[in-house]
Amino acid sequence: MNAHLSIAEKLTLAVRSVIPAEELQHIALHEPRFHGNEWAYVKECIDTNWVSSTGSYVNRFEQMLAEFTGIPHAVAVVNGTAALHICLKLSGVSTNDEVLMPTLSFVATANAVSYVGAIPHFVDSDRRTLGIDAVKLMDYLKEISDVRGSMIFNKRTGRRIKAVIPMHTFGHPVDLDALKEVCDHYHLTMIEDAAESLGSYYKGVHTGHQGLMSAFSFNGNKIITTGGGGAILTHNAKLAEYARHLTTTAKVPHKWEYYHDEIGYNYRMPNINAALGCAQLEQLPRFIQAKRSLADQYKLVFKDIQGVEFFEEAPYARSNYWLNVVLLHPEYADQRDELLNLSNARGVMTRPSWNPLHTLPMYAQAPKMDLSVAEELNGRIINIPSSVYDNAISI
Amino acid sequence: MNAHLSIAEKLTLAVRSVIPAEELQHIALHEPRFHGNEWAYVKECIDTNWVSSTGSYVNRFEQMLAEFTGIPHAVAVVNGTAALHICLKLSGVSTNDEVLMPTLSFVATANAVSYVGAIPHFVDSDRRTLGIDAVKLMDYLKEISDVRGSMIFNKRTGRRIKAVIPMHTFGHPVDLDALKEVCDHYHLTMIEDAAESLGSYYKGVHTGHQGLMSAFSFNGNKIITTGGGGAILTHNAKLAEYARHLTTTAKVPHKWEYYHDEIGYNYRMPNINAALGCAQLEQLPRFIQAKRSLADQYKLVFKDIQGVEFFEEAPYARSNYWLNVVLLHPEYADQRDELLNLSNARGVMTRPSWNPLHTLPMYAQAPKMDLSVAEELNGRIINIPSSVYDNAISI
Repeated sequence: MNAHLSIAEKLTLAVRSVIPAEELQHIALHEPRFHGNEWAYVKECIDTNWVSSTGSYVNRFEQMLAEFTGIPHAVAVVNGTAALHICLKLSGVSTNDEVLMPTLSFVATANAVSYVGAIPHFVDSDRRTLGIDAVKLMDYLKEISDVRGSMIFNKRTGRRIKAVIPMHTFGHPVDLDALKEVCDHYHLTMIEDAAESLGSYYKGVHTGHQGLMSAFSFNGNKIITTGGGGAILTHNAKLAEYARHLTTTAKVPHKWEYYHDEIGYNYRMPNINAALGCAQLEQLPRFIQAKRSLADQYKLVFKDIQGVEFFEEAPYARSNYWLNVVLLHPEYADQRDELLNLSNARGVMTRPSWNPLHTLPMYAQAPKMDLSVAEELNGRIINIPSSVYDNAISI
Repeated sequence: MNAHLSIAEKLTLAVRSVIPAEELQHIALHEPRFHGNEWAYVKECIDTNWVSSTGSYVNRFEQMLAEFTGIPHAVAVVNGTAALHICLKLSGVSTNDEVLMPTLSFVATANAVSYVGAIPHFVDSDRRTLGIDAVKLMDYLKEISDVRGSMIFNKRTGRRIKAVIPMHTFGHPVDLDALKEVCDHYHLTMIEDAAESLGSYYKGVHTGHQGLMSAFSFNGNKIITTGGGGAILTHNAKLAEYARHLTTTAKVPHKWEYYHDEIGYNYRMPNINAALGCAQLEQLPRFIQAKRSLADQYKLVFKDIQGVEFFEEAPYARSNYWLNVVLLHPEYADQRDELLNLSNARGVMTRPSWNPLHTLPMYAQAPKMDLSVAEELNGRIINIPSSVYDNAISI
């Protein structure tokens, strides 16, 4: 590649060299693919009048999710945020508890914690996974926490630290075994934010198995989409049943009576969205294959570009490569915005990581550890186009 | 009609005499009708890849809602509960405030109040509307409230009473002028729960105009449906803009940056659901006509049945007759469950009113006035089949 080109120009050309020709004009960051039974299933919903929350596609979608992930119970909800909200509530997180989470995450992770009156407590990132650094967290908890019986308290704030939410960033699994050790040692409940990791495996096991409960998302930009949607997955049958109850206004089943036994939510996924989801799930293995293949090609073309490094899965992980990442070398980090400007102007959609949560005004006062790795990564992460390209499957 | 038949048998026969023959086997309480552009619009979403929350049908649906109701600003959300939640938040209702509402309502009205940390305060019903009795409320507030400046406090609990949520029960408009007087006198913010009243008018004006903000629902059983869905409507452009911001995770618009300036919600309606909504709204005038015609027919057939009375709109109202109601005469109220059992067993779906909210365990301790009319009505209300029947339009 021409050495006189800027890093932004090289990146733009590299992406264009990989994405099939017919897509070349404007390359989206991530767009869905509806080439399966989407229309047939949605049409069936419309034809049979079942578009709302009592419909057979909701149950079918839940069964398919359980089968695909191997996590036995699934409850489909309106989105990933709602899923996280219910996971937190059913994990016993309550007002004034602290919940550990990566500062490098989408804002929903922290917002869901706020909905139950709890406080996010931000954790630094692991360079290998872009997710929570379990080792650094263990050391940090030793310093700031106070174990009393089976509870752990933050010595600085006096509040109980109840749970930890690892988020599998852009599809890359966190080091769950290392985090499990921290949880066992400090009596923390683990809730996996698997919003981005449907189809991602940690040591051969699908993400979402280690958490007491896990939250998935099927928003329009995810590996599969239901328009808007999410799901709660768990090994615990009772928690699943409770989640189903709470997400359907806590109505006690009865032929006609409207008796609700506690404050519930209107969070259940409508049937028409689940119909889309069933068709999408049927294609998921193919989507994962296409995305891993795209990642392989990116790996090759970015090898020769100085200044950027294609981010690869950790040795123990098999990532869905939901959103591909290149990392700017630290000495080029000051060119990030120029790179984003130029590539977007040239029709190659790119974006940086989310603004770290501890920098947002509503979470600026929240407790946090040293976040230097997350801050550094934040200046270096660039997401590049990552849709499924069928003709890119075999390289 | 045969005088030896029970009231339950008479009601079942009466409904069957009105509903067109092809529907006779099992008559649902309310089912949607998709005979318009539903397929075409939903298919367009799928074909163009726009199923999620950024899509043109969402804007179009909002514009159509604004045009139909005459309320200039509409924000489409995932359901009516979410709409109410945001209305309450943006009306300044906060922790420990009390919010007046009918005890005869769906549980979402009270739950939404709980979501903002406030406390429902239950009000009795007006026999003419089945909604809030404004006259009784005025007297009650005189007794229990304490006006300090522009705020009103409950003398018994010491808490501020901030707002009132009239709910237009089964589509029948509350006496809004009378309630407005109460609001003006006691500095209460009015939020209309118009979940059931799309297409219902109060003195020639669509419901939802008097509230500072109003919440609509398009759940599967409503007059139009989007699968799951709701909307916030308001005359206040700033509140609408704020509602749009809060329901889209409070993200500040930017080409690539993820900056959120407060705790927001993932409440926006997906495009695929809005597509369904656009097609449904096109048919709304016809739906209203068919429902009012069905009500006319019910009026006739129930005239001759002793023991039940068909519930009619108040003189000032033009109701959408979303769910038709017959009232059991008080002396037959003890036959309610028998009637429900028999009619449902015979394929005519009926149901009673919701359990009054003050009888639910989570709201049993909430403040309330004398609720004797609501309690009496609760034992007498029977909802009868109310779907749109095209061949029933002209009688």
